[in-house]
Amino acid sequence: MPFGMVKLGPDCGELTENAGYSPDKEIQGFSHTHVSGTGGGPKYGNVLIMPVTGQFEPGKLGSLRSDEQATVGYYSAVLNKYAVKAELSATKSVGFHQYIFPKSNKSSIVIDLGSFLGKIDCKDCMEGQRLVGSEIEIVSDTVIEGYTRVRGGWNQGKAYTVYFSAVLNTPATSFGTWKEGKIKPGNKVEFDTGEKSGAYLSFNTKDNQVIKLKVGISFLGILKARENVRAEVPGWDFRTVHQNAVDLWNKNLAPIEVQTSSEDLKKMFYTAMYHAMLMPVDRTGENPLWVSPEPYYDDYYAIWDTFRATSPLLTIIHPARQRDIIRSLINIYDHEGYMPDARSGNSSGRTQGGSNSDVLITDAYVKGLKGIDYEKGLQSMLDNAEKNPGSFARSIGRGGIEDYNTLGYISTNYERSGNRTVEYAYNDYCISDLARRLGKDSISNKYLKRSGNWKNLWKPITNHGSYGFIMPRKADGSWDETLYGCHWIASENRCETLPFSPLLSGTWPDFFYEANSWEYSLYVPQDVPGLIKACGGNKAFENRLDTFFVNGYFDIGNEPSFITPCLYNYIGRPDLTAERVRTAIQKNFNASIAGLPGNDDSGAMSSWVIFHSMGFFPNAGQDLYLISAPAFEKVTLNLENGKHFIVQTHKLSVKNKYIVSARLNGKSFDQNWFRHADILQGGTLEFTMGDKPSNWGKTNLPPSPREK
Amino acid sequence: MPFGMVKLGPDCGELTENAGYSPDKEIQGFSHTHVSGTGGGPKYGNVLIMPVTGQFEPGKLGSLRSDEQATVGYYSAVLNKYAVKAELSATKSVGFHQYIFPKSNKSSIVIDLGSFLGKIDCKDCMEGQRLVGSEIEIVSDTVIEGYTRVRGGWNQGKAYTVYFSAVLNTPATSFGTWKEGKIKPGNKVEFDTGEKSGAYLSFNTKDNQVIKLKVGISFLGILKARENVRAEVPGWDFRTVHQNAVDLWNKNLAPIEVQTSSEDLKKMFYTAMYHAMLMPVDRTGENPLWVSPEPYYDDYYAIWDTFRATSPLLTIIHPARQRDIIRSLINIYDHEGYMPDARSGNSSGRTQGGSNSDVLITDAYVKGLKGIDYEKGLQSMLDNAEKNPGSFARSIGRGGIEDYNTLGYISTNYERSGNRTVEYAYNDYCISDLARRLGKDSISNKYLKRSGNWKNLWKPITNHGSYGFIMPRKADGSWDETLYGCHWIASENRCETLPFSPLLSGTWPDFFYEANSWEYSLYVPQDVPGLIKACGGNKAFENRLDTFFVNGYFDIGNEPSFITPCLYNYIGRPDLTAERVRTAIQKNFNASIAGLPGNDDSGAMSSWVIFHSMGFFPNAGQDLYLISAPAFEKVTLNLENGKHFIVQTHKLSVKNKYIVSARLNGKSFDQNWFRHADILQGGTLEFTMGDKPSNWGKTNLPPSPREK
Repeated sequence: MPFGMVKLGPDCGELTENAGYSPDKEIQGFSHTHVSGTGGGPKYGNVLIMPVTGQFEPGKLGSLRSDEQATVGYYSAVLNKYAVKAELSATKSVGFHQYIFPKSNKSSIVIDLGSFLGKIDCKDCMEGQRLVGSEIEIVSDTVIEGYTRVRGGWNQGKAYTVYFSAVLNTPATSFGTWKEGKIKPGNKVEFDTGEKSGAYLSFNTKDNQVIKLKVGISFLGILKARENVRAEVPGWDFRTVHQNAVDLWNKNLAPIEVQTSSEDLKKMFYTAMYHAMLMPVDRTGENPLWVSPEPYYDDYYAIWDTFRATSPLLTIIHPARQRDIIRSLINIYDHEGYMPDARSGNSSGRTQGGSNSDVLITDAYVKGLKGIDYEKGLQSMLDNAEKNPGSFARSIGRGGIEDYNTLGYISTNYERSGNRTVEYAYNDYCISDLARRLGKDSISNKYLKRSGNWKNLWKPITNHGSYGFIMPRKADGSWDETLYGCHWIASENRCETLPFSPLLSGTWPDFFYEANSWEYSLYVPQDVPGLIKACGGNKAFENRLDTFFVNGYFDIGNEPSFITPCLYNYIGRPDLTAERVRTAIQKNFNASIAGLPGNDDSGAMSSWVIFHSMGFFPNAGQDLYLISAPAFEKVTLNLENGKHFIVQTHKLSVKNKYIVSARLNGKSFDQNWFRHADILQGGTLEFTMGDKPSNWGKTNLPPSPREK
Repeated sequence: MPFGMVKLGPDCGELTENAGYSPDKEIQGFSHTHVSGTGGGPKYGNVLIMPVTGQFEPGKLGSLRSDEQATVGYYSAVLNKYAVKAELSATKSVGFHQYIFPKSNKSSIVIDLGSFLGKIDCKDCMEGQRLVGSEIEIVSDTVIEGYTRVRGGWNQGKAYTVYFSAVLNTPATSFGTWKEGKIKPGNKVEFDTGEKSGAYLSFNTKDNQVIKLKVGISFLGILKARENVRAEVPGWDFRTVHQNAVDLWNKNLAPIEVQTSSEDLKKMFYTAMYHAMLMPVDRTGENPLWVSPEPYYDDYYAIWDTFRATSPLLTIIHPARQRDIIRSLINIYDHEGYMPDARSGNSSGRTQGGSNSDVLITDAYVKGLKGIDYEKGLQSMLDNAEKNPGSFARSIGRGGIEDYNTLGYISTNYERSGNRTVEYAYNDYCISDLARRLGKDSISNKYLKRSGNWKNLWKPITNHGSYGFIMPRKADGSWDETLYGCHWIASENRCETLPFSPLLSGTWPDFFYEANSWEYSLYVPQDVPGLIKACGGNKAFENRLDTFFVNGYFDIGNEPSFITPCLYNYIGRPDLTAERVRTAIQKNFNASIAGLPGNDDSGAMSSWVIFHSMGFFPNAGQDLYLISAPAFEKVTLNLENGKHFIVQTHKLSVKNKYIVSARLNGKSFDQNWFRHADILQGGTLEFTMGDKPSNWGKTNLPPSPREK
């Protein structure tokens, strides 16, 4: 379901896949909680259920599959080892299982509470999950209830508890439990000892006998899980459950209609839309930490990934949802003292760079999103900026603010001081802008000044023909020449340690996170004219961007360069924006199972491609869309306010990739950008395409908010 | 039970009493979780059960009582409103209720999961508890199960969940549930909606009909609560449960036998022993946060209160217990990054002053406690000293270490900078001493130097004839003359705001916590000779102590001056130590219900009086006991190692309050202090008393570790 709590699916192989699924490894069972499109150590994979025949050994139920099908709201596969066909669907909080058994006097449904993802060979064992405990009770021959409690995972979170209540449509003929592998036939109860436990229900099945199972999930308690079944799935018809999921997805996809002759493009586009609406997860009414009438979302995973495109996308197509997501952030701030940058399992952490929830709030305000307490939002942003998270800086807040708030940059005494500095500068711009709009000029001025802090790490050096780079600096003001970094050798899957230079990337303990100075030095969305000037002017900037794209320094597999192709718009070269974007899409995105550049980062890459395919891209945190590379003949945005905003593209073809003229609501439109109000009030933006760069969009350049 | 998880007792009045009990207000019911002898906002009071007759309204069940009895492991009272006699006992994890009903066709047992302490008119609403949710199920006519989830309380803790499984010996004839006051007769299930809920079971009772109820509690899950009933209370005999509690208490009290003709003194002494063994709570096997073979204790509440006397007491009488308490601290450090100073409901917080868990670890080492990973213990102390807790400084770690670790004191930019500075200095001594003993000399030297940091706040001023006081200082090194503080006017129950001076006390946001400069300026247990020198030498120091006691600046109601009476020993005046201690006991302690100076702070005051009554007091963190004011003819310490250490006091009387001579194992013993080994190896310390101060104990003064 869109933003659904239950994400039912197969956990495969050694349970090291990030979201459980692998296309070819053995299926160990079907668990109810997953993330989507994330990296690092896995999370969730709770309440694993497997249909088996014959004798079985807990933890060793794996079967290869055949005839796999996966569509919206539906998954099925035949488990070869058991000759069982499994069909799965789900509601928001309930997994619906339909198992078609062969003839067997020992068919069983196994519920494994000791299973979860990332327990062995986790990529980085700091990010592994650990079992805390579980209980299970066979309440009757058709009801099994209990919980599983797990901690850790990518965000190194505290223990979370997943309660369940499972109801069968077929009474079991025998049953049993196990603890640490020891099977106890006839036993009904395993209380929590911190060890792995589970239960099974067995049946004499005829050939093709269908056994159905509704598994309610809750983060509060067993009776709530039971209630979730009652409320969401009253009947036993698999088709109804599946159809409801399809209907709800269609409703959620309906805000964007595209017209194209390419079925592949359409498939890619709506797959991307689907990806963009899986996380964060709506857990309103399932918060075990406090009671509040506010919405509660979990699995912000991470805002660092999604603030640039996914959140702005939701603001257009599902503004009420985006409002709730932000209200939830502010509610978490209210109870825990910080908004999360990342959060999972009801536990905030980890923060890769800035406090980018700041961007969401300003983005919402400038786009007129109602129903948010912006005064409290601003306070939460100010607390991000001023409240030292100390040794919890990998979990919440801004690490290194002792430096940042005194020196104006973060010295190499702190990790990730490079990207933190440039991101904090943009976050400070967002504070400044919101404060100004709320009439708080002295706060606004203070943070406007701080939004120029990226310059304090701007080192006057030349690299590959370009001038000026964000580089490491010591607390005493001198440039740090002693730093080393990682030069990734993909073919050998290892780092070569080299003296720090603009092409060296890094991770948690390094100067930059997930990108290098070529990428981060171009991340000044609050002051692109200032950036252009620092780079040596328009021509130098153009050359620099060309070098960036031609030499392959642009990495669409992570987010820091998401906006970079659009920077050409700021120098009046939207033709080059279009070229870079089209090349990047062609190289990295398609309609196949591997149609994304690496993982999707909770819908981040998908949102990037959605925007550009529509022909524009947001500068998140600002009331500004930059026109880029329309891919459809027609895009219709069906807005929540009842209006329609249409992007019509004439003469589009593979060769005709450049905009040669544009009209907005029938009038000539020469600027390469527009505002949110242009969308909200409805209307038509028309592009006429040609096979050569034109003079369109060369003047009336995008406004830079710092100049106001 | 000693250190027991279940502390079953009445919750009274408006549920604002710190541990539920009030001697005269209405009893609202009997709940299963309480703290003991603590202050601030209340905590716990979960799973409230009340026997009633006739119609009732949830939340308004209160009844006055008569015939109240409370002895070890037993409580009873008649609830006047219902003519029900309630008798209560408990095991470690199970509350045993025995209700004697009158003849009634509408007798009920009511289980209220929406009740907890501190919800209304909480003393400081920042410290109030809040309901998060609950579920309840009437499983059968004799079994009710569920949970209640609450957050907040004095330590402002995260949500904790108390699960229960209640078993009746008498089937109910009818039943029902309620939610937010709305009673639903015949309903069996209330799932969690975050609202107040409960259930009742009704009976036709004959006159004097006994109905019994076993309520298992767990912090893991319902089935564990059920298992706790099965494992701890297999039968239904109330007397057996009560007798087991009495037996276990006797076993726990047995390490100290006292001989005296005063029954009151004996009663006071063993009551104090009882008080000293209620907290922290042994929750091994009940930790919902992680799995570990290590012991798990909760309700360290707070170590700031108990490190000075309670912990050293346990080290003598229950060293295996004290070892486990410390192992639990280190295990918490291992999983959460900091040892708690205070912790409750599985949540660390709040830290009033130093990181005094440091003292426990060094105290254990110097007293030879085995089975503790001291290397990891030292690392946890170093992390306390170096890892900045940032904005979480009221919860864990050392607040203000940005200042302390650079300036050598905490400036008035930070709250509680006065007591934090002097306490950190002592904590640093403890780090230094443990590091030295573990062969880490460079660490030891660094922290030995820092242990002199109290001098950096030593201002050369004279107050009431005494010279030199810990006073507020700015970050620029100048004394802060702009600070104001609270002068408490008890008769008006309010603060008068005055310019800061040595007699002004404070609380969380102030310069000192729960004491004033007269008290904190004398808290230099690591370097009493240095303190004496700073005060102007022996005579000035003696005069200062005299002023301190004669003028009533000594406050035994809080802990900062716990050691101060013994400072006379350091200038060879144990006769004055004896006088001050005897006066303080006489004034503040007795065998009545109000026999303590205010609340007991988890057994802190009780431990203070226990030590002094035995005739000595520990300088916690050091291998040093200071001889003070023996109150018994004979004290026998029955040690875990099988040895016996006896303190025999000859010619003791009200007038004969001074030690005139002493012998250790038959040999003359002229020093006013001894070491832990003197206790451990067994033997006899004999005092002969007289009615005048003598020359005993004037030379061979207590060693000061800083001089080594």
